[in-house]
Amino acid sequence: MTLFGGIEAGGTKFICAIGNGPNELVAQTRFPTTTPEETLSQAAEFFIRFMEKSHTQLASIGIASFGPLDLIPGSPTYGYITSTPKPGWANVAIRDVLQARTGCPVVIDTDVNGAALGEGKWGAAQGLSDYVYLTIGTGIGGGLIVQNRPFHGMLHPEMGHIRLPHDLQKDPFPGICPFHGDCFEGLANGPALQARTGQKAELLPPEHPIWELEAEYIALALQSIICVTSPQRIILGGGVMKQSHLFPRIRAMTRNLLNGYIQAKAILDEIDSYIVPPALGEMAGVLGAIALAQHI
Amino acid sequence: MTLFGGIEAGGTKFICAIGNGPNELVAQTRFPTTTPEETLSQAAEFFIRFMEKSHTQLASIGIASFGPLDLIPGSPTYGYITSTPKPGWANVAIRDVLQARTGCPVVIDTDVNGAALGEGKWGAAQGLSDYVYLTIGTGIGGGLIVQNRPFHGMLHPEMGHIRLPHDLQKDPFPGICPFHGDCFEGLANGPALQARTGQKAELLPPEHPIWELEAEYIALALQSIICVTSPQRIILGGGVMKQSHLFPRIRAMTRNLLNGYIQAKAILDEIDSYIVPPALGEMAGVLGAIALAQHI
Repeated sequence: MTLFGGIEAGGTKFICAIGNGPNELVAQTRFPTTTPEETLSQAAEFFIRFMEKSHTQLASIGIASFGPLDLIPGSPTYGYITSTPKPGWANVAIRDVLQARTGCPVVIDTDVNGAALGEGKWGAAQGLSDYVYLTIGTGIGGGLIVQNRPFHGMLHPEMGHIRLPHDLQKDPFPGICPFHGDCFEGLANGPALQARTGQKAELLPPEHPIWELEAEYIALALQSIICVTSPQRIILGGGVMKQSHLFPRIRAMTRNLLNGYIQAKAILDEIDSYIVPPALGEMAGVLGAIALAQHI
Repeated sequence: MTLFGGIEAGGTKFICAIGNGPNELVAQTRFPTTTPEETLSQAAEFFIRFMEKSHTQLASIGIASFGPLDLIPGSPTYGYITSTPKPGWANVAIRDVLQARTGCPVVIDTDVNGAALGEGKWGAAQGLSDYVYLTIGTGIGGGLIVQNRPFHGMLHPEMGHIRLPHDLQKDPFPGICPFHGDCFEGLANGPALQARTGQKAELLPPEHPIWELEAEYIALALQSIICVTSPQRIILGGGVMKQSHLFPRIRAMTRNLLNGYIQAKAILDEIDSYIVPPALGEMAGVLGAIALAQHI
């Protein structure tokens, strides 16, 4: 059996796995993200040890990484993490380092493109060709799949940084994006919820009034994403979306905001299956990385 | 020589042409958009008369039309204009009518997808595979080209209807979109400029303060479009963009808004060739329709 490696490279933790899909994982590990040197060594060691012990060469390794990344083919910094505010991780050649250490071909894409591919192959977007995976957690990011492939364009989408209407009377919070202040991510990521309420987002009860505001920002963002890309479905993942009471609110608000303008059955009659949670749970990221590796 | 027909179906006028490209047009006509019956008859007559006189069958006819359109393959209303606010034109089977009357295969797409394809083939986006054409005039709409093909997804993009920050103190105008009030189109289309100033947008002098506001809304919209689709270039066409002083303002504001977050040379160093006017001028729409016909 041909085996693939996958790395979910997150800002908080790394998850590494080896296998072929959700029911065919033969090894996995996870560890906190510290310095690039330490963290990338741990990841490389995991794959090297597996290959030595099993006398098996991995066909390829996929990395689904936090970013922004340089994904411009031919760029001298291709496969680098670029302008991240995460200390120590700006300008790190994550792909080159792992390819050199493991001796395997390594392919890299954004964490959200990885998760999006994985959900298309084994999860909530099976059978669709054009869809969006949006993660709302510590960061906010979106992957756009077009004709079953992650779309890159000039670089790759950065959907967390779109601009939204911000009613300062209703919500005087200035936003916390270090680049844009009150962009979508600056208003609606987990740390923005915590800054307003003094509590971690996952600990806030469903009846807390912040959730109505949060659902509204997400719905406003979805209106823009729907109007720009017209996806066949939108998957909402990430830590904040574990608050599952958000889904009915977001669906109703998105439909109200669009106000019948987009004449599509998916929105007018079937919004419960148009805006959906991921199906791959905790393993979405690393399975997405394996899906990337299989696409080389 | 194989000949193709093209129709730019606009809310104000129809332009029809026959040929193969900008320097190979053998016939053209234009007339105001009145009722669907009268206007579609005039268009059909133009092609029928040409074919009879020249004893030539057109290989196909492309329509680049205002919308929204039903472009879902297999839909019973495929090729219809759907929920347009334009009186008399909602639920009009524009493609079926023209195909039946002319006896030619007819392909339809949005006016902006047509213009985008034409600009890629002969104009401002030659050599690029992934880009956006945005028109800002009576309406606002955007076409997204992915791998040289118009992207549709669920339906087709409706970029004019994204939501923007709207500072009611600075600009108390409530917006004029009948569906969304102060969406991008509701704040920044030609009629919104006229409603605020009492003058047609094309007659407003470059030093009028409304242009600073207009450039800001367009730049805010471009930030969202760039963050969602990461295009290789953005072409800004339409009546409002004939005010060419807008280009330097929009470029500077877009770069300032993005604030270095998107680490791409095109934005950081080469924004003058990243946000550009169309190259095909008045004929962009109908040439785009011919490009659509050639893509059947």
